[in-house]
Amino acid sequence: MRVFTLLALGLCLIGQPAAAQPKSAGTPDPQVIDDLVAASRVLADLGVVDGFGHVSVRHDKDPTRYLMSRSMAPALVKAADIVEFDLDSVAVDAKGRGVFLERFIHGEIYKARPDVRAVVHSHSPSVIPFGVSKVRLQPIYHMSSFLGLDVPVFEIRDVAGPASDLLVRNAEIGKSLAAVLGDKTVALMRGHGSVTVGTSLPQVVFRAYYAEMNARLQSEAMRLGVVTYLTAEEAAAAARTNDGQVMRPWELWKRKAVKPE
Amino acid sequence: MRVFTLLALGLCLIGQPAAAQPKSAGTPDPQVIDDLVAASRVLADLGVVDGFGHVSVRHDKDPTRYLMSRSMAPALVKAADIVEFDLDSVAVDAKGRGVFLERFIHGEIYKARPDVRAVVHSHSPSVIPFGVSKVRLQPIYHMSSFLGLDVPVFEIRDVAGPASDLLVRNAEIGKSLAAVLGDKTVALMRGHGSVTVGTSLPQVVFRAYYAEMNARLQSEAMRLGVVTYLTAEEAAAAARTNDGQVMRPWELWKRKAVKPE
Amino acid sequence: MRVFTLLALGLCLIGQPAAAQPKSAGTPDPQVIDDLVAASRVLADLGVVDGFGHVSVRHDKDPTRYLMSRSMAPALVKAADIVEFDLDSVAVDAKGRGVFLERFIHGEIYKARPDVRAVVHSHSPSVIPFGVSKVRLQPIYHMSSFLGLDVPVFEIRDVAGPASDLLVRNAEIGKSLAAVLGDKTVALMRGHGSVTVGTSLPQVVFRAYYAEMNARLQSEAMRLGVVTYLTAEEAAAAARTNDGQVMRPWELWKRKAVKPE
Amino acid sequence: MRVFTLLALGLCLIGQPAAAQPKSAGTPDPQVIDDLVAASRVLADLGVVDGFGHVSVRHDKDPTRYLMSRSMAPALVKAADIVEFDLDSVAVDAKGRGVFLERFIHGEIYKARPDVRAVVHSHSPSVIPFGVSKVRLQPIYHMSSFLGLDVPVFEIRDVAGPASDLLVRNAEIGKSLAAVLGDKTVALMRGHGSVTVGTSLPQVVFRAYYAEMNARLQSEAMRLGVVTYLTAEEAAAAARTNDGQVMRPWELWKRKAVKPE
Repeated sequence: MRVFTLLALGLCLIGQPAAAQPKSAGTPDPQVIDDLVAASRVLADLGVVDGFGHVSVRHDKDPTRYLMSRSMAPALVKAADIVEFDLDSVAVDAKGRGVFLERFIHGEIYKARPDVRAVVHSHSPSVIPFGVSKVRLQPIYHMSSFLGLDVPVFEIRDVAGPASDLLVRNAEIGKSLAAVLGDKTVALMRGHGSVTVGTSLPQVVFRAYYAEMNARLQSEAMRLGVVTYLTAEEAAAAARTNDGQVMRPWELWKRKAVKPE
Repeated sequence: MRVFTLLALGLCLIGQPAAAQPKSAGTPDPQVIDDLVAASRVLADLGVVDGFGHVSVRHDKDPTRYLMSRSMAPALVKAADIVEFDLDSVAVDAKGRGVFLERFIHGEIYKARPDVRAVVHSHSPSVIPFGVSKVRLQPIYHMSSFLGLDVPVFEIRDVAGPASDLLVRNAEIGKSLAAVLGDKTVALMRGHGSVTVGTSLPQVVFRAYYAEMNARLQSEAMRLGVVTYLTAEEAAAAARTNDGQVMRPWELWKRKAVKPE
Repeated sequence: MRVFTLLALGLCLIGQPAAAQPKSAGTPDPQVIDDLVAASRVLADLGVVDGFGHVSVRHDKDPTRYLMSRSMAPALVKAADIVEFDLDSVAVDAKGRGVFLERFIHGEIYKARPDVRAVVHSHSPSVIPFGVSKVRLQPIYHMSSFLGLDVPVFEIRDVAGPASDLLVRNAEIGKSLAAVLGDKTVALMRGHGSVTVGTSLPQVVFRAYYAEMNARLQSEAMRLGVVTYLTAEEAAAAARTNDGQVMRPWELWKRKAVKPE
Repeated sequence: MRVFTLLALGLCLIGQPAAAQPKSAGTPDPQVIDDLVAASRVLADLGVVDGFGHVSVRHDKDPTRYLMSRSMAPALVKAADIVEFDLDSVAVDAKGRGVFLERFIHGEIYKARPDVRAVVHSHSPSVIPFGVSKVRLQPIYHMSSFLGLDVPVFEIRDVAGPASDLLVRNAEIGKSLAAVLGDKTVALMRGHGSVTVGTSLPQVVFRAYYAEMNARLQSEAMRLGVVTYLTAEEAAAAARTNDGQVMRPWELWKRKAVKPE
């Protein structure tokens, strides 16, 4: 009798997903997938990501799901590589493919920030020095006005202790990072990189690129002496204006980065 | 009776442009359009502009008109994208297409400087730090001798107050910028970028490029210690010589940047 | 009688290799050759090597042999250019082609470090300044965690005297370099470049690239003030994680660098 | 009678070159022309020259003649653009085409330095800051060992006064520059650029490129603290070794820069 029960249970499991596996929110709008593939390639083309880094977008049919490529270099991502995740960063159906260890960056930020619809994680080079020093990243020109007055730095030692591998490899660390990000657009990650959020893929790519540019230019400017940064009011006004302009570089960047195969 | 008058007036307006819309100065020389398209693409290829920035040229048939692309990334500009403006920066006929918010930079400089026939506005990266520090951009070598002894910095707070979005979005701000530029070739714009003027498109592109190079090299040189800049006499003599040489890089740059579609 | 002896000896020598020439370990796995060619081209594409620099791999059939191209620019290496060497860096059969003067870097490290299966020697630019100053290269982010806490610097004057040409042109200098490297992954070479070792070609290329990136970012960070480097524990943990990730950039880099002829 | 004399003289002049025009040394070896064209393009490809700068080679059939392109961007030079000059920098037959204002750099150095067979003049960017500061360019690694211990700086004010356009536009200034160069391989030109000499085109291109690299790396190294430069003995030994290696990067650089038309 117990044998039969176990057998029945076994048969039952064969035909359906494990209990923990989330259900799909359905097929996303093809434009969302196209934009996500484009964002991956544009970020690689701009040097924001190299073999590492990732970008995600919230599912257009369900705010409790997000879309991101399987674990691979962003420059090589195609539509077939996109995987759906729930906000605990469990894949709906990865089809046996590897997923990013650090997907919790994305899931935990989507949980904490209902306004966020797209997330970029990168090791973009000029930003790294600001994550390991006491100097704060501040907006030096209108293009990076979205930085506001305060770019927080996430110290992973505070949550993962003194011997971590610096990766956001579980929900707890992701939650801490989301808490440090707060209501900002960018958070630096000490000894690692940064995370950037936005309300759309074109906007988050814009922000990830100009955060990198700002870091490079701020370093240069600081060597010339005292720097006049944007005021809080200037940053807010310029960020509002720029939000209406993000499609201009987006169209250019896509044209350059997305080649027909 | 009043009804008839209004009706007649209404009919009258249907067949003609609004009173404020300027008349065209006629079709420009095709070479002017070709050069303007080339200048847009060359500036993008040289990294002086990215998705943002713009270049204009005074109309060859009427000094009270200038030509500039519709609002778009400079690397993608074609002849069909060129729009004619009067010096108040009102489009003759934009055909419903968006125009640059900051076209007043161009119009107000053409008003104030009859000698100027071409204008570039950019956020070229190495120049930005000089706009936010107290260090003045000075010519470090003969290629940037057109900088003369004094590159002024435009502080938009002086005219637009402490909470602007830093854009030259109206004639008043444009007029202030033109006043700061004075009789110079370049003015920096704090927290924003710069404007460069010239007597031709090849010359203004040359100047925009070597202003960027000078900023990069001056930053480097200052870190080595005391710098010997060009004297006023050297700068004037070298600028005169270079004015006879601008076609050499122009031909090269066009060859690289302007590909057949 | 003496004449006959000499003649016999002479005839004897004609038909066979010189006594000092080592025997081949046999044809390597074609994948090893493919990877070695790819590694050469990837390193050139990434700017780690220019016309100079070289990469080798231990023979898969015999740990007392290694494989490296003949003396040539790494970007141009093809399978037919690969030569087999014993650990004294004597070519099995160079077929009259020139071999690298500095092959002793490779042979002596393979002797001293049985764990090492691949070696890169380069003059990658950002690393050079750290070889000629008192500042130690330290890991600034997880990508360069393989640097550990201590990157040793090899001073060739200690072994080759004050008037050397700085090249590792014999076994004695190679042995000294291997001793300075010890059990580390990278050693800098004063006034010359660096050597990087790994357990595979993808890993050694990864390390050579991110050592260069770390140098560039550490220089930047030091100018911002006090730097928080990875702790020994963080470096060890992150290096372990990264070892499982080296194929991701490797696939990307090969795709970019290895074009069909 | 005087009329007839003058008439005869006039007729005489019609059929032959002006008395000041030098005679040709004959057609150069086609390989020399090929290498000169390649050197122009390689220097452009490496970023040593941009729209400006030039390279020359001594005529293989006559040491009192040299070959250089007409006045044009180096990246565009073809065999048909090469012009022959005597050592006073008078063109044998420019066929009405413009020649470089600064050809006297070449002619006067060939006069003063019988050992020199190739000359490069450039504004390569990293070298410029060293020409305007008190810091001397010194060899930081073996690749730039040809710099020796002392890179002289030419101050044009000493010969052309305080209001020159900084160009070496006559023989007198060229002679002064050659005197400052002395028996060295490189001389910096304050507020302008540099001149590099060699015994062959591959060698002079090698030197011009690695002088630029050294400047960039020396700037970086100086920011890290005290720098250990090559000793005079090391520089001499390494320069001798490198002279045997110049064909390796030359072949690579030609492959990249010289495309079939």
